Amino acid sequence: MTNLLPDCLYCRQDQRLTDLMIEVAPLQVSTVYLFKEQTYRGRTVVAYRGHVNELYELPEAELALFMQDVTRVARAMKTAFNPAKINYGAYSDKLPHLHMHLVPKYTDGPSWGTTFTMMPEPKQLLTDDAYAALIDSLRSALKR
Amino acid sequence: MTNLLPDCLYCRQDQRLTDLMIEVAPLQVSTVYLFKEQTYRGRTVVAYRGHVNELYELPEAELALFMQDVTRVARAMKTAFNPAKINYGAYSDKLPHLHMHLVPKYTDGPSWGTTFTMMPEPKQLLTDDAYAALIDSLRSALKR
Repeated sequence: MTNLLPDCLYCRQDQRLTDLMIEVAPLQVSTVYLFKEQTYRGRTVVAYRGHVNELYELPEAELALFMQDVTRVARAMKTAFNPAKINYGAYSDKLPHLHMHLVPKYTDGPSWGTTFTMMPEPKQLLTDDAYAALIDSLRSALKR
Repeated sequence: MTNLLPDCLYCRQDQRLTDLMIEVAPLQVSTVYLFKEQTYRGRTVVAYRGHVNELYELPEAELALFMQDVTRVARAMKTAFNPAKINYGAYSDKLPHLHMHLVPKYTDGPSWGTTFTMMPEPKQLLTDDAYAALIDSLRSALKR
């Protein structure tokens, strides 16, 4: 059935997705992923399950559930990583599948006081163990 | 009573606010403003009425209303200005009052396919008549 899905990394969950992020947990109407590029410690993506693009395409009840998912993850990121602020961004000009970047900001960290960089260079990639530790922390915080 | 409000441009609605944006309309739990810097034609800000910072601080029902306001404005921007995509960003590392930037993107316009710039240089400021025309279009679309 896979080839009936849109040619979209979030729908197909293929290597284009796994090169960029690691699944953390399914939520009510979305999935939360850890973003592999970790300039901003604890950065995640919350991707809506369906292939819609604009927030305003969601029916009211579905929009409420999606934002409950987003805020549940943000609260868990605060618990797990204690950033000073979380930034929220949904862009997807060329990747028409609703997803929101959740980016922890630290007062002594990168981009404090300004917008985050989508893909900083050089990339801060971690070891598998370090990814697993971040994911464990986040999953624990999501359970509270 | 003004001096009992937090020293916050959204709460006091003073010149710090009016230098940056023009009120378009009150919504359910927020206010929509036209951003004066118009590199991205039709750019707005939706600011929550209360002085809270993180989306996850809002009670569930209030979060739903805020996002209804955001998506109502986004839909109206699509109607009024016909961008190819709308970008959504909430940062406020140093301005602790919940607000979301709504930025229309056009396939042949600035920053297509990437994140928008918070304050592009040189600034694209318009005449009062041009601001009024954009606001009229947006208000008409909000009424539909």
